[in-house]
Amino acid sequence: MLEKYIKAARREVKADIVLKNASWLNVFQGRMEKGDIAIVGDRIVGTGEYDGVKEIDCSKLTVLPSYIDGHVHIESSQLSPEEFASLIVPRGTTTIIADPHEITNVCGMAGCEYIAKASQNIPLDVKLQLPSCVPATPFETSGAVLNGKDTQKNIKKDYIFGLGEFMNYPGVVNCDADVLKKLEAAHAMNKIIDGHAPATSGSELNAYLCGGISTDHECVNKEEIDEKISKGMYVHIRHGSSTQNLGNAKYINAKNMRRFILCTDDRHAADLKENGHLDDALRRLVANGLDPVWAVTLATLNCAECYGLKWRGAIAPFWFADLVVVDNMKKFNAQYVFKDGKLVAREGKPLFDTSERYLPKSVLNTVRLKPLTAADFVLDIKSDKAKAMTIEKGGVVTGCEIVNVVKEGGDVKVKGTDLLKLAVVERHKMTGNIGRALFKGYGFTGGAMGITIAHDSHNIILLGDDNAAMAKAANTLKEIGGGMVIVNSATGEVSSVTLDIAGLMSSRAAESLQQDSRALIEKAHAMGVKRDYEAFMSLAFLSLAVIPKLKITDKGLFDVEKFAFTPIEA
Amino acid sequence: MLEKYIKAARREVKADIVLKNASWLNVFQGRMEKGDIAIVGDRIVGTGEYDGVKEIDCSKLTVLPSYIDGHVHIESSQLSPEEFASLIVPRGTTTIIADPHEITNVCGMAGCEYIAKASQNIPLDVKLQLPSCVPATPFETSGAVLNGKDTQKNIKKDYIFGLGEFMNYPGVVNCDADVLKKLEAAHAMNKIIDGHAPATSGSELNAYLCGGISTDHECVNKEEIDEKISKGMYVHIRHGSSTQNLGNAKYINAKNMRRFILCTDDRHAADLKENGHLDDALRRLVANGLDPVWAVTLATLNCAECYGLKWRGAIAPFWFADLVVVDNMKKFNAQYVFKDGKLVAREGKPLFDTSERYLPKSVLNTVRLKPLTAADFVLDIKSDKAKAMTIEKGGVVTGCEIVNVVKEGGDVKVKGTDLLKLAVVERHKMTGNIGRALFKGYGFTGGAMGITIAHDSHNIILLGDDNAAMAKAANTLKEIGGGMVIVNSATGEVSSVTLDIAGLMSSRAAESLQQDSRALIEKAHAMGVKRDYEAFMSLAFLSLAVIPKLKITDKGLFDVEKFAFTPIEA
Repeated sequence: MLEKYIKAARREVKADIVLKNASWLNVFQGRMEKGDIAIVGDRIVGTGEYDGVKEIDCSKLTVLPSYIDGHVHIESSQLSPEEFASLIVPRGTTTIIADPHEITNVCGMAGCEYIAKASQNIPLDVKLQLPSCVPATPFETSGAVLNGKDTQKNIKKDYIFGLGEFMNYPGVVNCDADVLKKLEAAHAMNKIIDGHAPATSGSELNAYLCGGISTDHECVNKEEIDEKISKGMYVHIRHGSSTQNLGNAKYINAKNMRRFILCTDDRHAADLKENGHLDDALRRLVANGLDPVWAVTLATLNCAECYGLKWRGAIAPFWFADLVVVDNMKKFNAQYVFKDGKLVAREGKPLFDTSERYLPKSVLNTVRLKPLTAADFVLDIKSDKAKAMTIEKGGVVTGCEIVNVVKEGGDVKVKGTDLLKLAVVERHKMTGNIGRALFKGYGFTGGAMGITIAHDSHNIILLGDDNAAMAKAANTLKEIGGGMVIVNSATGEVSSVTLDIAGLMSSRAAESLQQDSRALIEKAHAMGVKRDYEAFMSLAFLSLAVIPKLKITDKGLFDVEKFAFTPIEA
Repeated sequence: MLEKYIKAARREVKADIVLKNASWLNVFQGRMEKGDIAIVGDRIVGTGEYDGVKEIDCSKLTVLPSYIDGHVHIESSQLSPEEFASLIVPRGTTTIIADPHEITNVCGMAGCEYIAKASQNIPLDVKLQLPSCVPATPFETSGAVLNGKDTQKNIKKDYIFGLGEFMNYPGVVNCDADVLKKLEAAHAMNKIIDGHAPATSGSELNAYLCGGISTDHECVNKEEIDEKISKGMYVHIRHGSSTQNLGNAKYINAKNMRRFILCTDDRHAADLKENGHLDDALRRLVANGLDPVWAVTLATLNCAECYGLKWRGAIAPFWFADLVVVDNMKKFNAQYVFKDGKLVAREGKPLFDTSERYLPKSVLNTVRLKPLTAADFVLDIKSDKAKAMTIEKGGVVTGCEIVNVVKEGGDVKVKGTDLLKLAVVERHKMTGNIGRALFKGYGFTGGAMGITIAHDSHNIILLGDDNAAMAKAANTLKEIGGGMVIVNSATGEVSSVTLDIAGLMSSRAAESLQQDSRALIEKAHAMGVKRDYEAFMSLAFLSLAVIPKLKITDKGLFDVEKFAFTPIEA
């Protein structure tokens, strides 16, 4: 096995591929070098002067180790792993630490297994973290529960790399027995545990870290970064679609540099397609003044070290030939991408076929509910004043406004007001649960709209000014197996986009999915949804009962600040 | 398991031990901090403000992660692992990457197993590398042979951490099948392989690295360091007794700092006792101008990262409480040493008992030979001119001088000349092999002296001007089970120091062993050995057939430059 590398390294035989006369990044020395890079099989065998069976002139190009995304939820792209890879690999990312938190909340371990198997035939190393918080909170009904015992069993699976972001911070510091079982199971297997501990500090952070947690991607300021790095955490600089903290890069210095890594966390298909993946992060970091050598080191060697990815993240003899050849370290336009020595993308286009999807039954038809009727959306409020949810522009933080309600036949009158009905319909266990609320200021009128993405349990979230349209919307989502829907009361028109994989992702190609999604989103705006919001995706966070202030789950209205359910009556 | 850490981290219960008001080194930020360090069981649970069941005032002291020696042969101390630990742990070293190359060349895997078992009850983490070169060369008879097949079997052993320094550089680059088998076996187990490749560069270094080798401790200049780091190697800064390259520290800069680590390689008991271990390296590095923060980081976090020692090498919540409390970062005098949270040394003295030795039969009585007589040392030279070995002052490099020989009764007359007879007597397999040579300029007269340490196969190496005394010396070494001996022809006196463990190390306490060793060494000088030489230890390298120029093994005289045996006749 080693012989072929050694002989080519010694120039006794030609290398398979030689990148000739390249400028290349030496991450160990933090500088650029000039010369040939020789590849044999899956490895780099040497730098210096080499002849290859195939030679690529890189005299005007720059060769970098290809990028490693330290933390990502593939589901946020709404794409299958195959399609996701077809977007990010051509951008230069060849390894991701993926936390299939969303699909596992819907499908349980079948969701994890699906991501693992779907990733087998694509030139992207998908290191799979076992989701640690399924469900994320006890305040909603999820499709699956992974308790401590399940974690003990599943963390041992070969396809499981580590334990996913441990969001249940109170559970750790309060020594919840089931939480400790999960953490201890990961330790017993010597697997890395990702963190998620916004604004935690002092002895609380110490306690959280004593759960054996290694990383954080939620830092918001210098003090937080400083303390977390001081206490041994690797800190992710994040370039998601909504949640970004590239600005944290200004706190990187020569002394702490090795403890920073890059991630995208949640990134939409449109962003991936139009702006890119980690290449976009690098572009912006460098434009904002970060040393390009440091920027790339964060995305390569540092991330490999953090996650113990041996022989990855650098250009050196015997290191895996995971390489991206870019035009320069300002634009980071990927000209060639190599994964394990194979050329897998050229000028931004994948050279691998992802047309065939792995698509097991276990992740399809995941919308389970009894047919709903208009009566299910009647809102019987016992007072004249009620709490209405509001939403900050472009954000996920919600507010609570006390509104006067007009009653009409045992229901709240919303038509002709700036109020809408909001409902979360349980879709996993046929519990019949429906959480109901009022929603102010979104702008939609004349029907209903809904989506089967509703963080983190992904029940159906619906809004509307017409009970029958809301029932029709929910029933349609069941029929199509999940996705997004709009029902127009006036015309009776029902428009939808199917997200067949767990109601979260589509098995279609990115381009046609996006086209249809965009059309549907435009339809929502045409029906009044203000352009301040992302039409459907803004809804998807109204159920996330860990972000202030007022949220709605299938179990009811939830006051995040009091951490308890609350009546709609004010 | 985690609960006790978390509760104390959160200050719900007192920590076991708190180092109060300490200055402590934050290796992640490259700076000093001030505060308490709380320890529970084997781990640090927090930094900040803590109360402890036991509290130690550190307001005038500095707390560092305790040191990790990246590469050491315990045998070079001539002490048992227990006694070795009693010298180095109080100096602040609590983890070593140990390569039992010497004892394995004598005893085979029984030697490895002995070191592993003898290390079980001492507060020193001994990470054991499987020696890769047993024998080191095919030009001598060793006590054991570990071929590729043996390596495949033994690398899987639980007590084996990695593969020891791969000195057979030609074997790697020439794709020797048995060599590749060894390297591949280590890869298959995902175990680290240490390197040893002096002066290797360019495509030859690339080829060597394609053996999957990670480290080097033999660098001699800036160019070599630069290239080796560029190609992904970790470079050890070495502080051995004879072989030192602390001067290489001047090539450390902010960009390459993370790729340097510290080691001692070979360090004598006297040095350990009088000057210290890595603490001595740190003292000197800092005295020579290296930033003390960097110096300690080399010996802690960097070394832990290189060898994948998780949760070791830093002061942070959940990291192992391997700590050394020093007076300051100039003197590095260790006041307290903690290993896995236990106080194991105080003011330079061990707090652990090493009086009981693990001493299996397999490493005792390892000198196997038939009784020798004066006739065995007759030197029948077929010409008037012969090659005589010479030795550089204080070094291990030898020369070759052509000398006129006077013959007397079929033997060479050495008495009254500046020549001595030198012999290597095979002592493992009863082959009866004796390699014979002439040795010039050492100064010894009036008998014979010898030792059972002769790198790397550790046969008996003897010199003398009296055949009968040489026979007596060899026979005495057999009787005492290995060690050092002087036979005085005039008085008939036989003086010796026993090295009962494999003929390499003593099971005695360091102090009494050293006393006797010093006395014997003085006796050698009294019989004429020039003070330029280390009396016995200078002999031990005359058989090392990989260091220029002329060497002697049990198979004969060896020309290292021609890499072939050579007749004694000139």
